[in-house]
Amino acid sequence: MMGTESIEKLEQDFLAYVKKIKAYEEALALIYWDLRTGAPKKGVGQRAEVIGILSGEVFDMQTSKEMAEFLEKLLPHKQQLPERTAGTLEECRKTYERSKKIPPDEYQAYTVLVSKAENVWEEAKEKADFSLFKPYLEQIVAFKKKFVRYWGYEGHPYNPLLDLYEPGMTVDVLDRVFKQVKDAIVPLVQKISMSEEKPDTAFLFHPFPKEKQKAFTLEILKQMGFDFEAGRLDETVHPFATGINQGDVRITTRYNENDWRVDVFGVMHEGGHALYEQHISKDLSGTPLAEGASMGIHESQSLFFENIIGRSFPFWKKNYPLLKQFASGQFDDVPLEAFYRAVNEAKPSLIRIEADMLTYPLHIMVRYEIEKALLNDEIEIGDLPEIWNAKYEDYLGIRPAHDGEGVLQDVHWAGGDFGYFPSYALGLMYAAQFKHAMLKSLPDFDKLVESGNLEPVREWLTAHVHRFGKLKKPADILRDATGEALNPKYLIDYLTEKYTDVYRIKD
Amino acid sequence: MMGTESIEKLEQDFLAYVKKIKAYEEALALIYWDLRTGAPKKGVGQRAEVIGILSGEVFDMQTSKEMAEFLEKLLPHKQQLPERTAGTLEECRKTYERSKKIPPDEYQAYTVLVSKAENVWEEAKEKADFSLFKPYLEQIVAFKKKFVRYWGYEGHPYNPLLDLYEPGMTVDVLDRVFKQVKDAIVPLVQKISMSEEKPDTAFLFHPFPKEKQKAFTLEILKQMGFDFEAGRLDETVHPFATGINQGDVRITTRYNENDWRVDVFGVMHEGGHALYEQHISKDLSGTPLAEGASMGIHESQSLFFENIIGRSFPFWKKNYPLLKQFASGQFDDVPLEAFYRAVNEAKPSLIRIEADMLTYPLHIMVRYEIEKALLNDEIEIGDLPEIWNAKYEDYLGIRPAHDGEGVLQDVHWAGGDFGYFPSYALGLMYAAQFKHAMLKSLPDFDKLVESGNLEPVREWLTAHVHRFGKLKKPADILRDATGEALNPKYLIDYLTEKYTDVYRIKD
Repeated sequence: MMGTESIEKLEQDFLAYVKKIKAYEEALALIYWDLRTGAPKKGVGQRAEVIGILSGEVFDMQTSKEMAEFLEKLLPHKQQLPERTAGTLEECRKTYERSKKIPPDEYQAYTVLVSKAENVWEEAKEKADFSLFKPYLEQIVAFKKKFVRYWGYEGHPYNPLLDLYEPGMTVDVLDRVFKQVKDAIVPLVQKISMSEEKPDTAFLFHPFPKEKQKAFTLEILKQMGFDFEAGRLDETVHPFATGINQGDVRITTRYNENDWRVDVFGVMHEGGHALYEQHISKDLSGTPLAEGASMGIHESQSLFFENIIGRSFPFWKKNYPLLKQFASGQFDDVPLEAFYRAVNEAKPSLIRIEADMLTYPLHIMVRYEIEKALLNDEIEIGDLPEIWNAKYEDYLGIRPAHDGEGVLQDVHWAGGDFGYFPSYALGLMYAAQFKHAMLKSLPDFDKLVESGNLEPVREWLTAHVHRFGKLKKPADILRDATGEALNPKYLIDYLTEKYTDVYRIKD
Repeated sequence: MMGTESIEKLEQDFLAYVKKIKAYEEALALIYWDLRTGAPKKGVGQRAEVIGILSGEVFDMQTSKEMAEFLEKLLPHKQQLPERTAGTLEECRKTYERSKKIPPDEYQAYTVLVSKAENVWEEAKEKADFSLFKPYLEQIVAFKKKFVRYWGYEGHPYNPLLDLYEPGMTVDVLDRVFKQVKDAIVPLVQKISMSEEKPDTAFLFHPFPKEKQKAFTLEILKQMGFDFEAGRLDETVHPFATGINQGDVRITTRYNENDWRVDVFGVMHEGGHALYEQHISKDLSGTPLAEGASMGIHESQSLFFENIIGRSFPFWKKNYPLLKQFASGQFDDVPLEAFYRAVNEAKPSLIRIEADMLTYPLHIMVRYEIEKALLNDEIEIGDLPEIWNAKYEDYLGIRPAHDGEGVLQDVHWAGGDFGYFPSYALGLMYAAQFKHAMLKSLPDFDKLVESGNLEPVREWLTAHVHRFGKLKKPADILRDATGEALNPKYLIDYLTEKYTDVYRIKD
């Protein structure tokens, strides 16, 4: 029987050990940020070795005998430990088991495979030739099936993959909510496609100088409450947000002078991620809990700012005059109403990353259904292109002309990221549900947005979402914040109302 | 007796271990660069913890039992090992012994002391009150004396401190060369002070917009052969160069719109450091040899470009027209000759970091003589202000009005950096000696500079200095490159010729 004192000592040692792991991860986060924002290319090879060494150390610490001992000795006392320690233990246990249950040689073979697969995928996509990529995808799926067996699971074999990105999420839940969303959206998409009152968008694509875009974007970031003393904005080809620590959250953007939306909505998106990271409780620093609760919850924060706020009428009522100040006259003859409709254009399209908020969930469902079926041996890899195309035709009414704009468009499968896609759609559902709940405390939400005072909105999100970091499971965050479990009704209502209005759908 | 095979295995293990240390140091170098170039300030506290953890790991690895075993088992076989391994062993041995010979509690007390001392020094400097700093300086000097005894030394007790920055350098050598330099420079400084043909410099201080300075500077960096695919230029308050790896060497600059020289000569200086780091042999990557040979050799490379090239007539014959293109007309009526004289202005001044190339060595000698005497108990700390002022009067003919512009001006002593100052003056001597030797292979040096073709110059420096990294000792680099030991005659000749010309000194 272990005395209280020795548990305390063990807890301190454990937390110090975990803090060290976190320090390595912070160094790695900075290295990755640097590689993407301007590291000189001739240094990249050597830098890769540094990444290899530091990542290897992280893996070794996460799976060491020392860690095993901490887990063995402390887990039985989880109930008596502070929740910060208990949550950290739980995260470390998960990581430990996920790594330890896979035989090292198999994991090694898998990592070699995916690094090759990404190159092959790139070529296959360019040549629109699925047959090149097929043997790699077959092996990756085979590995995923094996991993899932090693880990063990309840219910569907896809569940443990979902759990990697969305802890606690299951096929049962997704099947139910996705069906509801699909049943509502598919007809809505058909209606807007047939609408004769489509918004005019030509004025969106007039040249808008980069520096002017940047100046406007900085104003919006300030309005959002992005703390520039705890973050920065840089430029990259592929925008992202990274929380190096809560006082150092960096976002990036891309400027397209012929489409300012890429920058403005992109920054609102990454800015939403950043507000999350900036407001995770400082108490969680130095632990694996100082991160977003899940991919889906993270995405809910970015989509909240990009869409719920950034594509709302009150937001542009406030900011359209400001945008005009930075623009070169292209909006001078465009009324607010027409502008609002333009930035809410929606239409069926083939490429997920270019899709609008309305059709986006359908792109996700195609992938979700395929991943699920692959894990359950319900479909053959060879049939994927045809299955993909049929689903696009079914859900979106359009069909890829070739696999480059079809089944080969995303890098995720080449990288082994099965289970990731649903997070994007979950983010939308969470965001709409948060908005609905928020209205109870902030009934004047629209007025706040219209006045540019987003602070109460950010405070609500911090109080109900941000501060907990990974201490609470996604489902708990959602239930505690909104009073109910995941309910796709709020997204459906939101989308129906918005697009019925924008496309002036009658019935 | 150890078999060949097992030595080979041991060597591989040793090199892998060393590579790991180097990887941590690379991560730390990037972290420091980031902190100085734009890390958000609210993240700095947490970042300091990351630095603490990674630096601690480096120290632990450098002084571990594992390292001790490598040294014990491999050092006896040094002669048979490849020079890369032998040199690495030697560096590791030095680091190991330096750390291990000091009792950990004393070293701990010392690090606490210097971190406090830097704050106190800042206050003392601001208040020009030496008495505040005196008790700290006394303790720091006491520690230095103890460390020197722990380490052991031959000759003067200042020698091991010199060795930290300039391996192999001794008081005997410095006394000799500094005396020669002083005997030549002091009268020269007097002559220029009395010269009635001082250059006009007023036109140097007309406003020069930052962006224009930057554009000109980038042209000069290109001319120098700075590889922008293996480096970058950023902006900081205190400019520096850092070699993260040979393919990633970063420099920074500061723009003063009322004095473009800060940027241009600063960038040539840091660019000289960068060329060194970019051209260290790739074979040395992953070892402690992938660094400059010493502070002095490093400084010789920066000063070569800043002064030997950057303040030469041929350089400005080529680049003055270019400068005029970027400037705002202030040089339009200034002939090249007058401009050349202006950028070579020299005069006695009180502040080292603002001193010109001619008087700079005198600033260093004051410090050198004081440090040496402190280590040898020849002077009392309490007498320092008076000693300092007397030496300034003696060597430079001017006397500080208060200690803030006198003995308190440099941070080095507060940081415990005794033995560092001589490197600056050595750099000048090395640079002049390299230039003299280079003329034998490149007799048309001036024409090359005048044509903007600096590649042969860079190649000579790479062949004789850069590529060896820390594999060769400074004295060996100098002798192999120039055919003789350190000879201050070349600096004296260079300075005499230049300033006799610039100040039109007759006799």
